[in-house]
Amino acid sequence: MKEDAFDRFDRLIAAVQPTDQAAVQRAVERQATLTKPPGSLGRLEQLSLRLAGIFGSERPDPRGVAVILAAADHGVAAQGVSAYPAEVTAAMVRNLLPTESGPGGAAICAMAEQFGARLYPMDAGVRAELPLHPALVRAAVRRGTDDLSLGPAMAVGEALALLLAGAELAQRAGAEGAGLLVPAELGIGNTTSASALTARCLHLPVRQVTGRGTGIDDLTLLRKREVVQRALDRRGPEPLSPLETLADLGGFEIAAMVGVILQGAALRLGVIVDGFVEGAAALIARELRPEVSGYLLPAGLCAEIGHRAQLDALGLEPLFELGLRLGEGTGGLLAAQIHLAAAATLRGMRTFAEAAVPEA
Amino acid sequence: MKEDAFDRFDRLIAAVQPTDQAAVQRAVERQATLTKPPGSLGRLEQLSLRLAGIFGSERPDPRGVAVILAAADHGVAAQGVSAYPAEVTAAMVRNLLPTESGPGGAAICAMAEQFGARLYPMDAGVRAELPLHPALVRAAVRRGTDDLSLGPAMAVGEALALLLAGAELAQRAGAEGAGLLVPAELGIGNTTSASALTARCLHLPVRQVTGRGTGIDDLTLLRKREVVQRALDRRGPEPLSPLETLADLGGFEIAAMVGVILQGAALRLGVIVDGFVEGAAALIARELRPEVSGYLLPAGLCAEIGHRAQLDALGLEPLFELGLRLGEGTGGLLAAQIHLAAAATLRGMRTFAEAAVPEA
Repeated sequence: MKEDAFDRFDRLIAAVQPTDQAAVQRAVERQATLTKPPGSLGRLEQLSLRLAGIFGSERPDPRGVAVILAAADHGVAAQGVSAYPAEVTAAMVRNLLPTESGPGGAAICAMAEQFGARLYPMDAGVRAELPLHPALVRAAVRRGTDDLSLGPAMAVGEALALLLAGAELAQRAGAEGAGLLVPAELGIGNTTSASALTARCLHLPVRQVTGRGTGIDDLTLLRKREVVQRALDRRGPEPLSPLETLADLGGFEIAAMVGVILQGAALRLGVIVDGFVEGAAALIARELRPEVSGYLLPAGLCAEIGHRAQLDALGLEPLFELGLRLGEGTGGLLAAQIHLAAAATLRGMRTFAEAAVPEA
Repeated sequence: MKEDAFDRFDRLIAAVQPTDQAAVQRAVERQATLTKPPGSLGRLEQLSLRLAGIFGSERPDPRGVAVILAAADHGVAAQGVSAYPAEVTAAMVRNLLPTESGPGGAAICAMAEQFGARLYPMDAGVRAELPLHPALVRAAVRRGTDDLSLGPAMAVGEALALLLAGAELAQRAGAEGAGLLVPAELGIGNTTSASALTARCLHLPVRQVTGRGTGIDDLTLLRKREVVQRALDRRGPEPLSPLETLADLGGFEIAAMVGVILQGAALRLGVIVDGFVEGAAALIARELRPEVSGYLLPAGLCAEIGHRAQLDALGLEPLFELGLRLGEGTGGLLAAQIHLAAAATLRGMRTFAEAAVPEA
């Protein structure tokens, strides 16, 4: 008998358990014996303890990194909230795909190649027909959401389907060697959706969480704020469940990322929260299951307004501020190198006793 | 006929030429055509242009990373300026060396293993006898400098010998595949030397450039400042050449790093300036040859006071601030990943035309 989607969802949620605090304690003790002055590795030390809790070991080994890049289109793009036409989403997905002559042509492809990370592009609901390609995971239930400024972006069942598709892909990435997941996205119009979700989840005014996305001008920004406000005003005061909120204001790629985050946590993997759209997915995941927070790892502070408020809510302190606002998981993949380094020091360094180094 | 050391030095200095501005221009043009919104890769874009100038190509390929880690002892350690006894230097060098069972036990060993970087440990003048080991480069002319608070730390000829030894090792690292060099150091007492050099080069008061090193207490910090002041006050007002300054206030590992920096620039490689002691070496290298500046690449802001003043003088904006104050090149190796990513995007991304993506 085929398991019902809601049953799978419930099982996924329940599988997210707290991180291993006994391992954190062992890591604290080990950290204090390593051949370096106490505290001299700065924030790498705290990061390494967090990784110990996630991987349940005082010698955490995150192995590889996977970027799971979900792409989708947004009905709200018709309101002119982006600097780019919606056709760009499909073209950018095609640009993610490797050819006979080498990796894809997007920034994340070049970076994944550099770092030996795996890239899993997913069609979560792009409006155009995409090529059949072995590297492209097909999970679309329909070609683009409805316009969230006029009504719910999608049905709850659709949100659930994409969430479970994201979870399935995270499971595959884990089975194929990834210990660190970077949920990532691509979709013209999706910062509008992320702004609406963030305003709703954090009870913040639209102005504080609605920014320039890929680089819109002042007039477009005003229109975008109005659109987000209209989306929020559609509903009465009755509270929605997190899943209903996701369906109401989200995007297909955001639903998929929520699934990636939950499944990553359920598998006790690290989940790196990259940019603003990813942050919105993390807020929903946390509302679905607060225990997910322990598995989240910081990336940089992105240039999008509202990102800081998300990170504060998630308890994440950004690792750098390089002005990245591309998405695609680029900031997350950079951050992954810092997390890998943090884990490597805790895992690989000798203790004072092992190295026969005199202590202070 | 064996070439004289001063001749080799003059030849090295003369070999440092300006970076390739024509390649930078081609990179600016290429950058504008890549499949991303303009500016969306933030600081990675500027970094990639700098790398284009260094490697003379609009598709820069830095290949591998080498950490050249020079270790030495300091006569001034006898003044009690460090939290650790001088014996720690030798023990930490032994801790850098691989064994049959794996890499060395220091933080930089664990990180180099993680990132596939090569580590070149060099005995530049450690006080104790070190084991003969195939991985350890022996370049010491004597076991530790003289106390720089009482007289010159070393003779000019000794500074020159170490500088040339550093240059030779940089050449070897380049021949063995490194395009990015991380000059690094290890030596109890060496932030005292770096503070004195920084105060002299930047004409700054001792207090602004003398910090807590590996973690000294308030009383030790006061003593350290007095020691640095005494070192500066020893000399009359007559100006010294950069090489004389290096000999007067430097350390053997600092002299070696000056050589690494000059040779890296002469070979048109990128040189990542990691911490405070490395910054002092970069200041001397720049005084010896201003053209060296174009080959320097930023790492993080380290916790040591005075680092910001060095970076400002060198025209480097730090990439992160993670509270690292270990040295060993740890921050430089992290930064290398960001530089590799920046180069990879400029090298590997497709243009809008190649990818058939509609532009804004």
